[in-house]
Amino acid sequence: MVVRGVYPGRFQPFHWGHVSVVRWALERVDELAIVVGTAQESHTLANPFTAGERIVMIVRGLADAGVDLSRVYVVPVPDILMNAVWARYLAMFVPPFRYGVARNPLVVRLFREAGYEVLVPPAYNRELYSSTRIRAMMLAGDGGWRELVPPSVARFIDEIGGVERIREITGRD
Amino acid sequence: MVVRGVYPGRFQPFHWGHVSVVRWALERVDELAIVVGTAQESHTLANPFTAGERIVMIVRGLADAGVDLSRVYVVPVPDILMNAVWARYLAMFVPPFRYGVARNPLVVRLFREAGYEVLVPPAYNRELYSSTRIRAMMLAGDGGWRELVPPSVARFIDEIGGVERIREITGRD
Amino acid sequence: MVVRGVYPGRFQPFHWGHVSVVRWALERVDELAIVVGTAQESHTLANPFTAGERIVMIVRGLADAGVDLSRVYVVPVPDILMNAVWARYLAMFVPPFRYGVARNPLVVRLFREAGYEVLVPPAYNRELYSSTRIRAMMLAGDGGWRELVPPSVARFIDEIGGVERIREITGRD
Amino acid sequence: MVVRGVYPGRFQPFHWGHVSVVRWALERVDELAIVVGTAQESHTLANPFTAGERIVMIVRGLADAGVDLSRVYVVPVPDILMNAVWARYLAMFVPPFRYGVARNPLVVRLFREAGYEVLVPPAYNRELYSSTRIRAMMLAGDGGWRELVPPSVARFIDEIGGVERIREITGRD
Amino acid sequence: MVVRGVYPGRFQPFHWGHVSVVRWALERVDELAIVVGTAQESHTLANPFTAGERIVMIVRGLADAGVDLSRVYVVPVPDILMNAVWARYLAMFVPPFRYGVARNPLVVRLFREAGYEVLVPPAYNRELYSSTRIRAMMLAGDGGWRELVPPSVARFIDEIGGVERIREITGRD
Amino acid sequence: MVVRGVYPGRFQPFHWGHVSVVRWALERVDELAIVVGTAQESHTLANPFTAGERIVMIVRGLADAGVDLSRVYVVPVPDILMNAVWARYLAMFVPPFRYGVARNPLVVRLFREAGYEVLVPPAYNRELYSSTRIRAMMLAGDGGWRELVPPSVARFIDEIGGVERIREITGRD
Repeated sequence: MVVRGVYPGRFQPFHWGHVSVVRWALERVDELAIVVGTAQESHTLANPFTAGERIVMIVRGLADAGVDLSRVYVVPVPDILMNAVWARYLAMFVPPFRYGVARNPLVVRLFREAGYEVLVPPAYNRELYSSTRIRAMMLAGDGGWRELVPPSVARFIDEIGGVERIREITGRD
Repeated sequence: MVVRGVYPGRFQPFHWGHVSVVRWALERVDELAIVVGTAQESHTLANPFTAGERIVMIVRGLADAGVDLSRVYVVPVPDILMNAVWARYLAMFVPPFRYGVARNPLVVRLFREAGYEVLVPPAYNRELYSSTRIRAMMLAGDGGWRELVPPSVARFIDEIGGVERIREITGRD
Repeated sequence: MVVRGVYPGRFQPFHWGHVSVVRWALERVDELAIVVGTAQESHTLANPFTAGERIVMIVRGLADAGVDLSRVYVVPVPDILMNAVWARYLAMFVPPFRYGVARNPLVVRLFREAGYEVLVPPAYNRELYSSTRIRAMMLAGDGGWRELVPPSVARFIDEIGGVERIREITGRD
Repeated sequence: MVVRGVYPGRFQPFHWGHVSVVRWALERVDELAIVVGTAQESHTLANPFTAGERIVMIVRGLADAGVDLSRVYVVPVPDILMNAVWARYLAMFVPPFRYGVARNPLVVRLFREAGYEVLVPPAYNRELYSSTRIRAMMLAGDGGWRELVPPSVARFIDEIGGVERIREITGRD
Repeated sequence: MVVRGVYPGRFQPFHWGHVSVVRWALERVDELAIVVGTAQESHTLANPFTAGERIVMIVRGLADAGVDLSRVYVVPVPDILMNAVWARYLAMFVPPFRYGVARNPLVVRLFREAGYEVLVPPAYNRELYSSTRIRAMMLAGDGGWRELVPPSVARFIDEIGGVERIREITGRD
Repeated sequence: MVVRGVYPGRFQPFHWGHVSVVRWALERVDELAIVVGTAQESHTLANPFTAGERIVMIVRGLADAGVDLSRVYVVPVPDILMNAVWARYLAMFVPPFRYGVARNPLVVRLFREAGYEVLVPPAYNRELYSSTRIRAMMLAGDGGWRELVPPSVARFIDEIGGVERIREITGRD
């Protein structure tokens, strides 16, 4: 029987901290479904990249890291805005799974209330590896963000003009 | 530059005809995003399987067929019910792409109206390889459906009790 | 610990067959939540009455039948159109419960998949007591429907002009 | 005080029968809001044209007929699928009004239940002037539909390739 | 003719101030529908409890207070997010009514615009009896909240681990 | 071939700055569709007026200004909350167009990503002509807002009691 975990996040963008969680989870499950949450939103400061772009970042970033992609599913899921059904709604989009992978206390609780077990990964240097911080650096013109993501992710963000997008969409009339 | 195609379907279930389309498309594009449509529906006669279950069928079925999965994305997308925006909505969930892969005239048209080119695959023995027909066989107790899908798909459907599900959900009070 | 059941239906309108199910269920649980489904729909042949009108019918009909209303909740719930999350969605609107009360095989299955036990009531003369049949009688001008519902329900339907409504909304230009 | 009416329809396409209703209504109100309903749907046999295309048809068709457009609003409104709130929902999109303009008994009733008066126009040769019939003629290649709509409407439908669209979207794989 | 009122609130949680409004309203109407608003939301600081849990609180809290429950309906209603149709949308879920019961000026106005009369209850010591304040006390570990709600409500919140829930869902990674 | 532009805004309320943009655009296109955005919202401080009321303001305000209304469409559009499809969604509601008319960098970008050209109007004294500022003046009882809108708009706002509405809906219990 294949033991699966589900790791939800927004991945705006996907960084080394996320890679560490994936590695850690793959030591504990046979297969991992990475859920690209808030899939309907893009072109905002909090969610600049589309779900499709985030899928590319995750796949390429994991390839950079030498992760075995045949054990990974990457699955976009739009928001449902009803916490009480969230975990079951998520389950509809992914293969049958036993474990939620989460640190956020609300997410941990929602998985447990729906009958799933939870694997809580360690915090991988979160003051450093933070999507919020990366987006702030992009906006401020601080190129240091490039070292916080796998090289393929940085290249893909350049390819789609990601930094320019963030600056543009936050501009004023 | 990676050339990508998007192949939308419901895959209820994924069968050898779908495999043929995927192979055909992979001869024409570098990467293919297989979109699992009507992702929100399950447990109906037309859509018995969840999006997550269909993802497993596609990945395992393509593995049976020796398809290089590193060139394939499998992406669930809920219905939007507005034809005029459908193609752009789809594009939000998948990596940037050039080609739609479709035979259905409406789908072909919607891709073209949104500015995409379309690759029209040949019809692979559609009276034989048809999801509707497979579901009818399941309902009628005709085991012949097993030969219409890759062996891993048949095994997975057995594993989740798929045939029983179809019979149960179509039962009457 | 209070043992509760949930009995979903559309109750268009509430009839003696429904009363029998409620009685039967109240012999098995401490409290029963009657869910008025498809709460968003009214003024159609399949769903002529609003959720609020159906609530009145249920409360008055059960009072006619001498049912102890202090053991009953009547709860309207709009459709969600995702079978895989339906039971959890329902659970959000009602007090914590152990049993689903249902005969429909799909509904039975959805309760079980979500981890609930199911109480399957007997079929109470369904060719006679059927909401579909009652609406057809109303449309055809056959007053026999009055004997199929508790007297208060018939009076309430008269009070709101229910038969006229059904005829009007099914009329043609 | 300006007396306004609201005339809802789908206008797939706008034909001489609709023009007659508009003229008739403008003899009874100062201003008329023509509501283009089911605005979210297009590219289906029942609703081939987008709301925007229908707006053009209405404006040009009324100009052909010499109707004073300064007394007319043309307002697209997506479906809400809750009959009990439909009239108030409609009212949100249009200027304050006193009269609904409708023949369909359900629509007449929904206007009245929401507190509006209703103007019921005569039936203008409905076996001849019918959008359903016009779409069937388009599909069948019967050019007679051109005489059932104002000349500008026929020209606009040609301009956007409307007949081809209807044939294409109803085609089979 | 039964005269009914509708009293909308979120009741997160139901407290003695709410009980006072219910009593006050029941002196003015025959029956009162208590609408549990924002029914779709739970597990947030503003809305920690599900609609179903709030229904239990209301029923038990009113029983504590000796209110005649046979004159009360408790009805969950999800948000609609369109103020202009809100009152009619609400009306769909509850028995026919004459009075809105509200103090909030927006709510008062929306009832009146939809043609309902409004009963404005006195403010019952709102700096003391406030759901926002109760939730803040729960979060801060101040047990004083127990005196602000009927004893059955406090017991039910304990039974479902309500205080722990509020602390958990507001926790950080 | 008719060259059209689309000018989206919320117009809460329509003021002289908006009139200037319309005039400026009509020097560059044959026809202009003015999109009344966030059409579903009203009775809030940010969006006090319904879409229908805003349509009246726009039509009367442009008439005050001597603008040729036969070249203008006024089209309400509810929010879609998915930036990646917004421009195509908008296109569904309006006649076929070539130009977006916008200054906001996000809106400019969304038009361009969807394949439209953009006309960027000059900023017409925006610290003076600002809907936000006008609403603040209304709330504060500063009658100076009347000079910032065309006279017909001020009269219409008076007619519907707009200032009172803004004060009421922002009131506290």
